[in-house]
Amino acid sequence: MNNWLLQKNGWNEQDAASDGNRFLCANGYMGLRGMPEEASSACFPAVTLAGVYDQYQHRWREPVNAPRGLFIRLFFDGQSLALKDTPEKHAAELDCRWGLYRRETDFGPVQVRSERFVSMADCHLMADQYRIQVRQDGDMTLQVGISTDIWDINGPHLFNFLFQTGETLTVDAITGEKKITVATAQEAARDFDADESECRDASGVYRVFRRAVRKGETLTLSAFFAVYTSLDVPDALSAARMCCRKAKAAGYSACLQVHKDAWEQIRARSEMTLEGDDAAALALRVSQYHLNAIAPRHAHSMSIPARGLSGQTYKGAVFWDSEIFFFPMFVYTQPEIARSLLRYRIETLPGALKKAAEYGYRGAFYAWESQEGGEEGCTNFNVVDVFTHRPVRTYFRDKQIHISGDIAYALRSYYDITGDRSLLEEGGAKVILECARFYLSRANGHVDSRAVDFADVIGPDEYHERVTNNAFTNQMIRHCLESALALEEIFADRPGWLASLLADLHYEADWQLLADVRGRIARAAEQNGVIAQFDGYFDLEDCSLDEVRSRLRDPREYWGGDHGVAGTTQIIKQADVIAMMALFPEQFTDRQVAANWSYYEPRTEHGSSLSACMYALTACRIGNMDEAWRLFMKTAQIDVLGGGKQWAGEIYIGGTHPAANGGAWMIAALGFAGLRVRNGRPEIHPNLPRQLFRLRFPITVAGERLTVEITREGGRILRE
Amino acid sequence: MNNWLLQKNGWNEQDAASDGNRFLCANGYMGLRGMPEEASSACFPAVTLAGVYDQYQHRWREPVNAPRGLFIRLFFDGQSLALKDTPEKHAAELDCRWGLYRRETDFGPVQVRSERFVSMADCHLMADQYRIQVRQDGDMTLQVGISTDIWDINGPHLFNFLFQTGETLTVDAITGEKKITVATAQEAARDFDADESECRDASGVYRVFRRAVRKGETLTLSAFFAVYTSLDVPDALSAARMCCRKAKAAGYSACLQVHKDAWEQIRARSEMTLEGDDAAALALRVSQYHLNAIAPRHAHSMSIPARGLSGQTYKGAVFWDSEIFFFPMFVYTQPEIARSLLRYRIETLPGALKKAAEYGYRGAFYAWESQEGGEEGCTNFNVVDVFTHRPVRTYFRDKQIHISGDIAYALRSYYDITGDRSLLEEGGAKVILECARFYLSRANGHVDSRAVDFADVIGPDEYHERVTNNAFTNQMIRHCLESALALEEIFADRPGWLASLLADLHYEADWQLLADVRGRIARAAEQNGVIAQFDGYFDLEDCSLDEVRSRLRDPREYWGGDHGVAGTTQIIKQADVIAMMALFPEQFTDRQVAANWSYYEPRTEHGSSLSACMYALTACRIGNMDEAWRLFMKTAQIDVLGGGKQWAGEIYIGGTHPAANGGAWMIAALGFAGLRVRNGRPEIHPNLPRQLFRLRFPITVAGERLTVEITREGGRILRE
Repeated sequence: MNNWLLQKNGWNEQDAASDGNRFLCANGYMGLRGMPEEASSACFPAVTLAGVYDQYQHRWREPVNAPRGLFIRLFFDGQSLALKDTPEKHAAELDCRWGLYRRETDFGPVQVRSERFVSMADCHLMADQYRIQVRQDGDMTLQVGISTDIWDINGPHLFNFLFQTGETLTVDAITGEKKITVATAQEAARDFDADESECRDASGVYRVFRRAVRKGETLTLSAFFAVYTSLDVPDALSAARMCCRKAKAAGYSACLQVHKDAWEQIRARSEMTLEGDDAAALALRVSQYHLNAIAPRHAHSMSIPARGLSGQTYKGAVFWDSEIFFFPMFVYTQPEIARSLLRYRIETLPGALKKAAEYGYRGAFYAWESQEGGEEGCTNFNVVDVFTHRPVRTYFRDKQIHISGDIAYALRSYYDITGDRSLLEEGGAKVILECARFYLSRANGHVDSRAVDFADVIGPDEYHERVTNNAFTNQMIRHCLESALALEEIFADRPGWLASLLADLHYEADWQLLADVRGRIARAAEQNGVIAQFDGYFDLEDCSLDEVRSRLRDPREYWGGDHGVAGTTQIIKQADVIAMMALFPEQFTDRQVAANWSYYEPRTEHGSSLSACMYALTACRIGNMDEAWRLFMKTAQIDVLGGGKQWAGEIYIGGTHPAANGGAWMIAALGFAGLRVRNGRPEIHPNLPRQLFRLRFPITVAGERLTVEITREGGRILRE
Repeated sequence: MNNWLLQKNGWNEQDAASDGNRFLCANGYMGLRGMPEEASSACFPAVTLAGVYDQYQHRWREPVNAPRGLFIRLFFDGQSLALKDTPEKHAAELDCRWGLYRRETDFGPVQVRSERFVSMADCHLMADQYRIQVRQDGDMTLQVGISTDIWDINGPHLFNFLFQTGETLTVDAITGEKKITVATAQEAARDFDADESECRDASGVYRVFRRAVRKGETLTLSAFFAVYTSLDVPDALSAARMCCRKAKAAGYSACLQVHKDAWEQIRARSEMTLEGDDAAALALRVSQYHLNAIAPRHAHSMSIPARGLSGQTYKGAVFWDSEIFFFPMFVYTQPEIARSLLRYRIETLPGALKKAAEYGYRGAFYAWESQEGGEEGCTNFNVVDVFTHRPVRTYFRDKQIHISGDIAYALRSYYDITGDRSLLEEGGAKVILECARFYLSRANGHVDSRAVDFADVIGPDEYHERVTNNAFTNQMIRHCLESALALEEIFADRPGWLASLLADLHYEADWQLLADVRGRIARAAEQNGVIAQFDGYFDLEDCSLDEVRSRLRDPREYWGGDHGVAGTTQIIKQADVIAMMALFPEQFTDRQVAANWSYYEPRTEHGSSLSACMYALTACRIGNMDEAWRLFMKTAQIDVLGGGKQWAGEIYIGGTHPAANGGAWMIAALGFAGLRVRNGRPEIHPNLPRQLFRLRFPITVAGERLTVEITREGGRILRE
């Protein structure tokens, strides 16, 4: 079996949010949520643009959703044909091979089948082929156009709409905050005659086709939709119009073909083949599809939001997910994308320097939720209390200081895996040094001993705010200082270059401190080989996850912070000590990993999609393959099954889960295959789960394309 | 007018909690809440014992309430005579001159008038004279005895009750946790014939007198009640019985006389006379009465709970109120009591060392809510959320580190005002050194500069938890380190003694750090002359007190912490920067005080009785006498008017307000008279409010008894 299809039969409006995520089409520039063409804004349809942000009033800044240009509505004998909740008359699927969304609906008098894609060949384009099978004679009206009925979480964001009709329908508008033009254009081609007119109302601009239809007829319409913004080109509207016209001239099939070719190339470089379990194989394909679909291939310096392009959740912001969860698949398969993710951090260094200064520190304190230019999108209030409806002060923005170390970690990994130091030369070294400087200024030295604490932080487990000596954070900081010091060896042949960089940064005094402080950073307390997640962790109430869950008074209430049910207990949101062990495997023995795994896993809610993957990776390490498999499936199936947490307090947090998508690759590659790079050379340490008999995937290490193959007999790395 | 009477007409059961506080009788050993003899436990009657604590199950530890030995109930023609809500038929008063509680009730057929006191001459004794005026012929039954129907917040605390009858009624019981015997005995004398019997039921043990009465008759009963515990003497029950018998033998009048004599002596040493405003004069008398009544005159080393002996609120624990708010009146008028308060801290040093060690620090971290032996009574959960009914994690216990400095401050003041260094020799110096050591180990040094922060603390304003560089705290710490260093000068004539103390404490390395660290402690940022209460204070939402109040969803909800309405704004609970300016007047110019006063006063909720007094003191300093007067009256009248906050979340926090009682003396003495001691000599700097024409009060400075007199013409200090 070679199944690439994520399928769903039936229509249920209450699944709309979840289905829109699972059936997402995207190309890194924009995402089109997987809803049928005619879906109203109650079904959360959206065309979400990457890297275009806007603030409405005093609400959170979030990405802009463009008008929806593949809006198609059908009337039969004057009746609008609308989806009704039914298990039989509707089916949708996503073909993950090429990112094709298809739907098929039996409306009674007509049957509709359509296919669409967001072009991987031209990032501004999306196209839809809409086919109507007539079952009964009658009068048919088809409305095709650009809908401006936009679903926003914190909007509206677009103003001063300008509509134009003619051969090309266009809508352009500007954003409220930064006056960015968002221009959209649509063309349609049809294989049938019809009376054609245009209509414009408050909800958009449309072309209307009318004709009498006969039972047995098949009518096909193709729609092409283009989006440009003034961030892309000065005259976005002309560019959008031109893009559409070219696409229409080429025709749907030709556009589809170049799109599929582009996907073939992507898959050739990254596709994992997993044999032995069909559900797992499909889940991995869906995961890889979702992560590949949102990679910023069109951009030189861009990162990926934590919910990808599936909507405005989490402010469309870039989190540590980029460096820790997305980066590994890309650096091993498409290093130019990994490079783009990191260039984004290099270019947004000024924002990080500014944020550190705002808090009274030196160096680079990266945004927890980074938007364009490195602006901090995270506010002081990220949760709404379900009992009082008041915003709750959270400390993600100010205390989750591991973010700077995570970036330095990825920069260092990029060098280790690609062997390419140019990124360090082009600003990466500077970023590492400024991150290290931030930690020097953030350190809490004891005045009566040489110990250095990092107090008042939040680690990966966000349920425990404002803790001291979070083991993960301290380790990330130690590694950051080491990575700064390692620059001396990496650039041993260019000592002048490093010296001049240090001089430019006025880094002399800090350089002297690096080695000294690194050795003084507190090590976490241990109890029976279990590392305390932070100082005092073992003093917290030790109760079961079920017990903590039973204390909820409202299913939507926030678990974290001092008011949350978990905050005063040992129950954690996600891998923390275990994430450290997964990221720094060589620092810990198998025995340590085993002891910590057994302690922390039952105390972990896995309330974040970043959690299971770390537990799975470490489970492979210690040979606990049943758990590894369970957690691999949990990770890989997250966007197959849909669901997941949709609410944090009263805030909608639904969307796709790119971190889990990346995590699935990590578990297979780094866990099942045991891939790592040591001294510039790839190694494998296979741990194939009993459910599988073969795992095969391409990688690129130090510029060389290789194939890893793991079977029950063992593993090998093949040259091409 | 020379009014000593706090009076109230009428009976209203919903005022019972408040009236019980205002009409409290006490003698430092025990307190008797001001409720009529027959009041049921629904009226919160109690005999609260000083320094006897108990824990029931896993609830908070709190002081033990003894059985009530002056319980008297009257029946007429078989009907129990009970108080009913009425404005006319009942009156109560407290005579503050001698601590006498009187009540007068018209029950229709009889009128009852009684008087009672808790003896200042024998701390184990209380007595009641109960007089019945018969208005109508009938049958009367009088029940007199010891009720074991005890009102507890977190009880029950007494078990294994043993009842004895005979000439002396006795009840003894033991506490649940520490098995302390609480023995009570009661005797009654009467001037009328009656059939006498005894009765015992679940609610206590009683003597019952029955007789026919005639209109016009007056019957008088005297009851004597004694309490001893096994902390006082080995055979508490015999001691209690003996105490009662002696009292009965002497008679009510004789007992009253020695009690009054004792009060005369107290007043001779401390009584303030204030002329010009009768309400103010009464309020000041009530305040002085309440603070004098709870002073531990019977003990050598004992402090005073924050709610005095008015009940179990705040766990009967000793707070910084003792050193900052109670201490000044005592050190200036009855230094032996100030000495007892501080000896309590000296003797509980081991508890403070233990608490510091628990948190990973060295030195002395005193309990925020200190119980016997310096045990920390404060838990991690001190508030209950009114919406979820869940306990809320508060940080008073772990972060309110100024407590150690407050104690060092009082120790230093004791020396400065009395000129007596014996207390320093007898452990006080050691306490100061260990407190300073705690701060050395708690300091957060920057590794890249010499600056030292104190991060993650709570200042006096408890609404803002976990702040950095609270100005008050940092100043208190600086002063603590200076006080440690000053020991060298204070003991300049005994260098060997100090050297050997330092050697005993292994203090050499710390001593070297003291001066260095003191000079490195961060100074708060200023904006237009206003000192930031802590780092980032000015970045908080700046909105009005009314605005913040309007955000409450429940009148009982807690304002503080990140979830509270005040926590994320600049609204503060109580004087903080201004408290610092009041306690360290010489560190700040008049202009600084004025600028900070104007900024902070409108932003202060005065949600603590510790607040107004600090604002009043500083208002005197800057000549804002209208505000000083308003805040003096607010402070002094707090237990005249009753009221005040009765709830924090779902926790009852009512009681008397000894800190405000002490504050009233402070405003009058230190504010209106401008009293201070400089180089061992008292000085005055009068600021008499226009409402007054004379203020006169005794003080003792450097062992000499003096009288301060302030009139509109100026002030003088008179030798006796």
